[in-house]
Amino acid sequence: MAQQERAIRTRRMILQGAAEVFDEFGYDAASIKEILSRVEVTKGALYFHFPSKEALARGVIQEQTLHLRVAENASKLQELVDITMAVAHVLPEDAMLRAGIRLAVERGSVDFGDSNPLLAWTEVLGALAEQAKQQGELLPQVDPMETTELIVSSFPGITLYSQVAAGLADVERRVSVLWQHLLPSIATPSVLARLDTAPGRGARALLSVGEAGGESAE
Amino acid sequence: MAQQERAIRTRRMILQGAAEVFDEFGYDAASIKEILSRVEVTKGALYFHFPSKEALARGVIQEQTLHLRVAENASKLQELVDITMAVAHVLPEDAMLRAGIRLAVERGSVDFGDSNPLLAWTEVLGALAEQAKQQGELLPQVDPMETTELIVSSFPGITLYSQVAAGLADVERRVSVLWQHLLPSIATPSVLARLDTAPGRGARALLSVGEAGGESAE
Repeated sequence: MAQQERAIRTRRMILQGAAEVFDEFGYDAASIKEILSRVEVTKGALYFHFPSKEALARGVIQEQTLHLRVAENASKLQELVDITMAVAHVLPEDAMLRAGIRLAVERGSVDFGDSNPLLAWTEVLGALAEQAKQQGELLPQVDPMETTELIVSSFPGITLYSQVAAGLADVERRVSVLWQHLLPSIATPSVLARLDTAPGRGARALLSVGEAGGESAE
Repeated sequence: MAQQERAIRTRRMILQGAAEVFDEFGYDAASIKEILSRVEVTKGALYFHFPSKEALARGVIQEQTLHLRVAENASKLQELVDITMAVAHVLPEDAMLRAGIRLAVERGSVDFGDSNPLLAWTEVLGALAEQAKQQGELLPQVDPMETTELIVSSFPGITLYSQVAAGLADVERRVSVLWQHLLPSIATPSVLARLDTAPGRGARALLSVGEAGGESAE
């Protein structure tokens, strides 16, 4: 048991170091040597968990969608909003999420196929959109997956724009602007009136960051 | 005069070759040698027009916003829609526009600063949004620049998602979906009822591709 916990902690440390390096250098220029220089694990331990750079990138991609938890909400549309606002809230300080975005947008030498971060996020957020639809929160013409793909598509460019314009300082405001524009076309009027999309929403809805990875490693 | 025309043609050929190489390799891996291997110009001619790889990238960024022309429209909001739909229409066959997107999203070793493609497109599309606002086409609460930045932000991710999901085959549909979601929050009801955002709109509105660069070179 103690051994298993140690393995989980080691795996998480490696992924954290890998995320920092992918965020800083991009996939092609990242090296396992650089990752090892930042993490207190042996080369053998790293290769035991992740046999290649590609495995490390796939690990980071899988980890980032489990990376933060927000409070459950009776409104699944609010929960969907909350995840995006919480991601925006932690992004300036969080290499794991920034690495995911960088791996999503850079056409490096590896095609991540079904592990592409855009598809991984669509799965997570799409499930909430489907639930919102079933609960009658969405307007009748809304296709939950089509809308989810649009939201996921908007995210990398919003963070890039925020990076260029303000060093990520205004990314929460920009995600809030996205929702203000989209929600009137998505939510039923009674749901729309109750949704919180203010820039401070991410901090209020966030429960934890960086703790889910352990469970996912089992 | 003939000499000036020749210079413009040469400049355009170089930018086309550079766009192909930036699109294929990204900024960091692109080389002037590779560009020269695709364009029938001498090394001296290339360096006369563009003294460095960075100058070539800035040339491509500047060129892409002038790269296509759409029909003028009494509705400036329709004209804004038309530019985005025309970009989506030509994108699968157009290295210049794809290169602009790739230079926008990849954090290479150079910071393009004010020449960043996101900012360049915001200037072009923002002018139309401001005109639309002045003409009373936009709802009172709409901030034309905020909305323009959101549209520009959405674009790279939409093309990335289309690339991953369908090799760019559905990018027109995805831009159409963006407009269907945004326009009810942007346009006054009477304007909204008349706007054409169908996936075929880009082909209908497009006047020319790749001809504006000549004038911009003077």
